[in-house]
Amino acid sequence: MALMHSEVIESTPFPFDIGKASPKKLRGIFRTGSYQGTTAGMSDGYTQGNLAIIPERFALDFSRFCQRNPKSCPIVGVSDTGNPSMFTLGEDIDIRTDIPSYNVYREGQLETMQPSVEHLWGDDSVAFVIGCSFSFEEALTQAGVPLRHQELGRTCPMYRTNIENIRSGPFGGTMVVSMRPMSAADSIRASAITARFPHTHGMPVHIGSPQEIGIKNIEKPDWGDPTEFKNNEVPVFWACGVTPQNAIQEAGIPLVVTHTPGSMLITDCRSSEN
Amino acid sequence: MALMHSEVIESTPFPFDIGKASPKKLRGIFRTGSYQGTTAGMSDGYTQGNLAIIPERFALDFSRFCQRNPKSCPIVGVSDTGNPSMFTLGEDIDIRTDIPSYNVYREGQLETMQPSVEHLWGDDSVAFVIGCSFSFEEALTQAGVPLRHQELGRTCPMYRTNIENIRSGPFGGTMVVSMRPMSAADSIRASAITARFPHTHGMPVHIGSPQEIGIKNIEKPDWGDPTEFKNNEVPVFWACGVTPQNAIQEAGIPLVVTHTPGSMLITDCRSSEN
Repeated sequence: MALMHSEVIESTPFPFDIGKASPKKLRGIFRTGSYQGTTAGMSDGYTQGNLAIIPERFALDFSRFCQRNPKSCPIVGVSDTGNPSMFTLGEDIDIRTDIPSYNVYREGQLETMQPSVEHLWGDDSVAFVIGCSFSFEEALTQAGVPLRHQELGRTCPMYRTNIENIRSGPFGGTMVVSMRPMSAADSIRASAITARFPHTHGMPVHIGSPQEIGIKNIEKPDWGDPTEFKNNEVPVFWACGVTPQNAIQEAGIPLVVTHTPGSMLITDCRSSEN
Repeated sequence: MALMHSEVIESTPFPFDIGKASPKKLRGIFRTGSYQGTTAGMSDGYTQGNLAIIPERFALDFSRFCQRNPKSCPIVGVSDTGNPSMFTLGEDIDIRTDIPSYNVYREGQLETMQPSVEHLWGDDSVAFVIGCSFSFEEALTQAGVPLRHQELGRTCPMYRTNIENIRSGPFGGTMVVSMRPMSAADSIRASAITARFPHTHGMPVHIGSPQEIGIKNIEKPDWGDPTEFKNNEVPVFWACGVTPQNAIQEAGIPLVVTHTPGSMLITDCRSSEN
């Protein structure tokens, strides 16, 4: 389970340049159910987001949870109750069908993965879309800050920490972070660059000693793949979108729908507008 | 009715420097009910906020309204339902008593102004604190950008516009803006400076022609005082905290409590952390 992915796409089934394709064109393809893979590398410059669909009776508490923990839970859009049109995030978005693949959790356990959740959407459903690290990784790459997990063709490593979330109702737990090894100079540039992206986790939450934030073994991430350090590189940690997913799973909600890791909502919002 | 004030304080009843006083010390004085005036000029460097207390059944829609209209409705804190302790905004805050003066609205009409609303707080009450322009005005002043309304000892002028808010449930209407006359050079600096304060309305929404955003007569503000232009100055418009107050008043909520204009919650949050 990982909400943030940076998988390297070896090949795609699409007869066009996915990086240049419009979000609407791609969502239209996903709507048909013909593609259930990653959205990494698609629609360069547009914000992608994590999804969580929960019943309305939990929505106010979850909304407060996100407001109180903005680095790990930056809300980019919330649906009206029972209305699957995410009209604030793009033209003609149907949140039940326009993501390549959905995870369905019952009582906190993954039950199925499906290309559509029309049959699970109800009058009391509320969809939350939360920023992911795709946007800031794109900005780092453009600025010449190398990302080791991308070079290695792996998923970014993610870790549980001892940083307590600020609780709201049934939502609590601790922060999950992603980690990227960098030179000291790049860690400074990366801090300044990502500070400009508050809706995609913003600046780092920690640089240096993993122990200081409760990570015992940097070589054994809780999600994603281990990565590699070069001489004199330091670990740089960002708040991660797995945090709200964890909080939701531990909140005792009977039915939750999320995106399948790596398979995100591509919005019409420019990353630079965040 | 105006949520944003920059009144010049001629004198204060306090035997100490209010600019250097801690937020907690001042809140403790307000709690006794002995002072019901403006908080302008108090606790330099700390975020002050607008208040709206509404029943829980309206809170999810209002939370969505604020998420969709972040420039005019930047949430800095939300209470748990029925719990008057705004624990995310400071030490020992009781939102029912720690603001100098409250406005009580029944069916959209101002009923009373009171130094405490303990008797109106219920098990279903939710308090929203929304950023105000005090923080960014302080930053502008420190950067040497003159603020005409402060020089004149007046309240900043505010106007209804034709900029539609993104609706959420019963909350809609149009954006209210505040206006500050500036030289072109200062308008550019002010844009860059206020862009760093997303939780206190952020960068301007418009510069130049008032007609373009539906303001017919710049000399007749809908709230606050008229101001004066010097040669070659342009009007610079920011989204204003009166916007959510208007939206709440038009939403048909039976009982709403707000701060009295100018008399804000002083939080323990540093403005520079926003």
